Amino acid sequence: MTPATTRPTADPRRLSGVLAPVLTPFRADLAPDPARLVAHCRWLLAHGCAGLAPFGTTSEASSLSADEREALLDALLEGGIPPGRLVPGTGCCALPDTVRLTAHAVRRGCAGVLVLPPFYYKGVSDDGLFRAFAEVIERVGDDRLRVYLYHIPPVAQVGLGAALVERLLRAYPRAIAGMKDSSGDLANTKRMLDLFAARGFDVFVGSERFLLENMRGGGVGCITATGNVNAAAIDRLFREWDTTSAERLQDEVNAIRGAVEKVPVIPALKAILAHHAGDPGWGTLRPPLVPLAPAQRDALLADLARLGLEMPGLGG
Amino acid sequence: MTPATTRPTADPRRLSGVLAPVLTPFRADLAPDPARLVAHCRWLLAHGCAGLAPFGTTSEASSLSADEREALLDALLEGGIPPGRLVPGTGCCALPDTVRLTAHAVRRGCAGVLVLPPFYYKGVSDDGLFRAFAEVIERVGDDRLRVYLYHIPPVAQVGLGAALVERLLRAYPRAIAGMKDSSGDLANTKRMLDLFAARGFDVFVGSERFLLENMRGGGVGCITATGNVNAAAIDRLFREWDTTSAERLQDEVNAIRGAVEKVPVIPALKAILAHHAGDPGWGTLRPPLVPLAPAQRDALLADLARLGLEMPGLGG
Repeated sequence: MTPATTRPTADPRRLSGVLAPVLTPFRADLAPDPARLVAHCRWLLAHGCAGLAPFGTTSEASSLSADEREALLDALLEGGIPPGRLVPGTGCCALPDTVRLTAHAVRRGCAGVLVLPPFYYKGVSDDGLFRAFAEVIERVGDDRLRVYLYHIPPVAQVGLGAALVERLLRAYPRAIAGMKDSSGDLANTKRMLDLFAARGFDVFVGSERFLLENMRGGGVGCITATGNVNAAAIDRLFREWDTTSAERLQDEVNAIRGAVEKVPVIPALKAILAHHAGDPGWGTLRPPLVPLAPAQRDALLADLARLGLEMPGLGG
Repeated sequence: MTPATTRPTADPRRLSGVLAPVLTPFRADLAPDPARLVAHCRWLLAHGCAGLAPFGTTSEASSLSADEREALLDALLEGGIPPGRLVPGTGCCALPDTVRLTAHAVRRGCAGVLVLPPFYYKGVSDDGLFRAFAEVIERVGDDRLRVYLYHIPPVAQVGLGAALVERLLRAYPRAIAGMKDSSGDLANTKRMLDLFAARGFDVFVGSERFLLENMRGGGVGCITATGNVNAAAIDRLFREWDTTSAERLQDEVNAIRGAVEKVPVIPALKAILAHHAGDPGWGTLRPPLVPLAPAQRDALLADLARLGLEMPGLGG
């Protein structure tokens, strides 16, 4: 396995560390709430996040229209969030939507984009997936574009395998910057690291459970749902992964993660934020997601209190 | 099983028979081609289709932006396709997109809309799916709305079960008009017919393979991919389902379907259309779909020639 120190990437704009796929706040009428989003992003950047990946799975991005996604990204930038800290999700089922959102993010100076494959059709060929990414890269046509491939087969059902990554890296060595591996399969992460990390392909894992192993294998961090509520502790693990504290820090973040994963994760994170921010409105989700039942929520919050989760300054 | 004759629905606007989920033609630059689409729709209505379901799975609808879908529907209407023959697909992952496309179709007088559930998140609850459909119906807020639920678990992975249909029918007995059952599971179709057909819930099967059984159980027709190329024969089966010719007609349409299903169906149908219309441009697909390999295409066309498939007047 390639040690981290031999990675050749020297692009100073490349992000590493903990990125949060930022939760999207909704008003009671289900409209997105840009002001709450900006406030949460500021808090995250001040409390452990090296960067932010708005419009990920945790963000209910697929439940937002392209117009809403563009408007929210603009609101973040107008709210003072530095574009160099942003890797917005831009992958949609429809090529024109993906091209539009990707071009917008690049024009605004975002550090990169996190791109799902088109996910409606199942069992599609690598030829078709290659063409999907190639069309986006060619149509955006901007040297600043940095694409992080978003591999999340448990949700998208359409995955991105090593042969496809190889082909994309050969065709677009500058544009293809890395992957978010949300397979939950450490063997897949190790394969990506072994095959591609030495060529400047930055691997983020999709859960902090795999952060230590990812760093040991030459990865660069994690983009994790629980980054919304526990980024400081995960960031400490990221910074101390090569110290004797690492295993203990990994166990600690795993304990928080385990409590959250007992229930549906996105509603859980919104309930935690609602509680710690003293803002019940944070609990609102767009369908098809629904809030936790009150008993689930109370048990979750009790678990997390026992584990010592704190979110200082939130909602303050 | 409820015989067809006892169905209480007397709404003269309800469609029955063969509906084609219309293939979407693309130009070489992958832009949709409204003129070709209108021409194909006219041909379909003159050759066996009782109605058209543009923007279905076969239409690569999820590969189109909401703007493109609206513009294409407008082009169909401006091209003289009667709105009363149209049941456009309007279900997207994002609530605002589904509301927008549904409201647009209703305003334009379409006979109904075919609505996928939001399909990104998997394993969602019936509560969440109920809320997704309820929000669309309430936000569109138009008595003319007729929703056909689109159940296609092999692709969407998110299905619509009997408990959900029951709940929707109780809450919105006027708006919920029926289902396209593309499960490929005749037992599911029979369950929907037994539970709901007598209450005016119109069941279309998603493949003509099940058309005879659907009609015998009280269904109203099929919305089938191969309606794009073989609607006249499928329509004859629909009209003669209760005659002694029915089994033979079912076997005949099954033979054509079997030839098409040997290869990926959407590229196959586009290849057939390209061939019979003498218009190679019909073969273009948006990624992630890709054309058939030449050998696949040639074998398909040879099979269909042997089976006697004709498309008179196409491209003429």
